[in-house]
Amino acid sequence: MEAHATVPGHVTGFFSVHQASQPAKAGSRGAGIALQDGVTVSAKETPLEKVKLNGREATIEPVEYVLERFDSTVTVEIETQLPIGSGFGVSGAAALGTALTAATVTEEYQSEQELVRLSHVAEVKARTGLGDVVAQARGGVPVRIEPGATGMLDGIPATQRLEYITLGNLSTAEILTGDTTTLSQAGENALDRLLDSPTIEELFVCSQEFAREADLYTPTVREAIEAVHENGGTAMMSMLGQTVIALDRGLSNAGYDPAVTKIDHSGARLTQKSDDL
Amino acid sequence: MEAHATVPGHVTGFFSVHQASQPAKAGSRGAGIALQDGVTVSAKETPLEKVKLNGREATIEPVEYVLERFDSTVTVEIETQLPIGSGFGVSGAAALGTALTAATVTEEYQSEQELVRLSHVAEVKARTGLGDVVAQARGGVPVRIEPGATGMLDGIPATQRLEYITLGNLSTAEILTGDTTTLSQAGENALDRLLDSPTIEELFVCSQEFAREADLYTPTVREAIEAVHENGGTAMMSMLGQTVIALDRGLSNAGYDPAVTKIDHSGARLTQKSDDL
Repeated sequence: MEAHATVPGHVTGFFSVHQASQPAKAGSRGAGIALQDGVTVSAKETPLEKVKLNGREATIEPVEYVLERFDSTVTVEIETQLPIGSGFGVSGAAALGTALTAATVTEEYQSEQELVRLSHVAEVKARTGLGDVVAQARGGVPVRIEPGATGMLDGIPATQRLEYITLGNLSTAEILTGDTTTLSQAGENALDRLLDSPTIEELFVCSQEFAREADLYTPTVREAIEAVHENGGTAMMSMLGQTVIALDRGLSNAGYDPAVTKIDHSGARLTQKSDDL
Repeated sequence: MEAHATVPGHVTGFFSVHQASQPAKAGSRGAGIALQDGVTVSAKETPLEKVKLNGREATIEPVEYVLERFDSTVTVEIETQLPIGSGFGVSGAAALGTALTAATVTEEYQSEQELVRLSHVAEVKARTGLGDVVAQARGGVPVRIEPGATGMLDGIPATQRLEYITLGNLSTAEILTGDTTTLSQAGENALDRLLDSPTIEELFVCSQEFAREADLYTPTVREAIEAVHENGGTAMMSMLGQTVIALDRGLSNAGYDPAVTKIDHSGARLTQKSDDL
C-alpha cells in the first residue's frame, strides 16, 4: 500500500514560549497563517527505513522520531518548494505528513489527535518548532489559545491572497534556547490584542508590534516590510525565518517578485491511498 | 461589501444526546463525515433583513437566531443541492455560513470559535441539530469526543470517494424529544469502539450497529444498506434522515444511481469578500 498526504506551510506572526516537563504540554501560544504552499509526503512499506527530501536521502530529526514509533519500516518521500529553515514550518509539516501516511501504510491506525500529538512531541524534542504542528493540522488562520499538542485552538475568518519572499535563514533553536522573557511578554500582549479584534489585518498589526518589541527584525526584513508599508500594503515577518509575508499584492506593489499563495483551510490531510486507485 | 462562505454537508453515523441547561453546553457526542457537497452562503448589508434559500424567501429558524445577534441588517442567500431534512445538516450549515458572512459584511468581527458557538446555540434552540455545526466547522471525519459548542474534537484520517442516496425525510425534532436513553447508550458504545480502531471503515461498522441497537432503520434504508453489503460494499444511514452513504462505489455497484462526493477537509470557510475582487 502507498499513502499520500498534504500538509500546509505555516507562518507564525507572534508567539510566547511555554516550557513544560512533558513535551506534549510544552509549546507556544500565538497566531499565524496556514499556506496552500506546503509539503507533500508519500509513504510505502519497505524492508528498510529511508527518508528522502526533494529526491535526496536526508535526516530530518522529527521525522526520524515519528518513524521510530511504528513497528514496521517505511520509505518516506517528502517534497516541498518552500525554503527550509525560513519560518514555514517545513520540519513540522514533514513530521505530521509522515505520521499520517506511515499510520496508514503500516495499518497501525491512530486518530488525528494522536498523530498530531506524536508529531508535536517530535518537533519539541528536536527543537525545530513549538506550535507549527497543531496549526498545520488545523489549517486556516490558527490562533493557539493554549500551548501544547492538545491545547485549545481558535481561528480567524479570512480569505485573502498572500505573497511572500525569503531573504535568508534564522536558527529557531538558537533563539528558543536564549532568554525568551521579553519575547514571550510581547507574544502574550499580541494575543490579547488579536482576540479583541479577530481579523487578519489585526494579525499583521499585532505581529509587527511583536517583532519590534521582541527585537527580531533583521535589517533586510525591516527594509522589505517598510517598502510594503510605504506602498500602502501590509506585511509581517514569519517567526522564525527571514521571510516577509504580505496581504494581497503588498510585495508586488513594492517592486518585489514574490511567491503567491492562499490560505489553506484544510490543514493536514491524506490525499490518496493506493487502494483508492 | 459582500461576503461568501462554503460549509460542508455533514452526515452523522452515530451519536449520544447530552442535555444541559446552557444551550452552548448541550449537544451530542458521536462521529460523522463532512462532505464536499454542502451549502454556500452569501451576505450583504441591506436596509431590511431577508433570507433566501435556493432563490426563494424562506424562514430558517437557526439562521434568524444568528442574524438577530448582529446590529446591522443583511440579506443572506443560501444555496444548496442537498436535500433538506434528510440528515445532511443543512440547517446547521446555513446558520454557520450566515454567521461567517454576516460578521464580515457588518464588520462585527468574531473569532471562528465565537461564530461556531453562536451557530451551535441557534441549532440547539431550534432543535434542528445537536452536533452538525461543530463538525461542519472542523471538516474531515469529525469525532465529537465532548458535547457542546467548545467540546473537544478528534478526527479520523481518510480520503475515500463517497456515494449517497436519499429515500425520504425523518424529523430530527421528533426523535430528539422522545426517550433517547437506548439511543444514547448505543451511541456511547459506538464511540468507545471507534476510538479503539480509528478508521473510516470502522466508522461504518459502528454506525450500522448503532442504527440497529437504537432501532432507527426504516424499511427502505435497511433494504438499500443490505443491497450494498450483498454486493461487497459498505454503507450506513445518516442520522437523522432517510439517507444512505456508501464508501467508494458501494451504491453504484448495487445498482443505485447515487450522488458522488468526497470528504471535505476544509470545514466552513469564507471564500470571497467583495474587496478581494
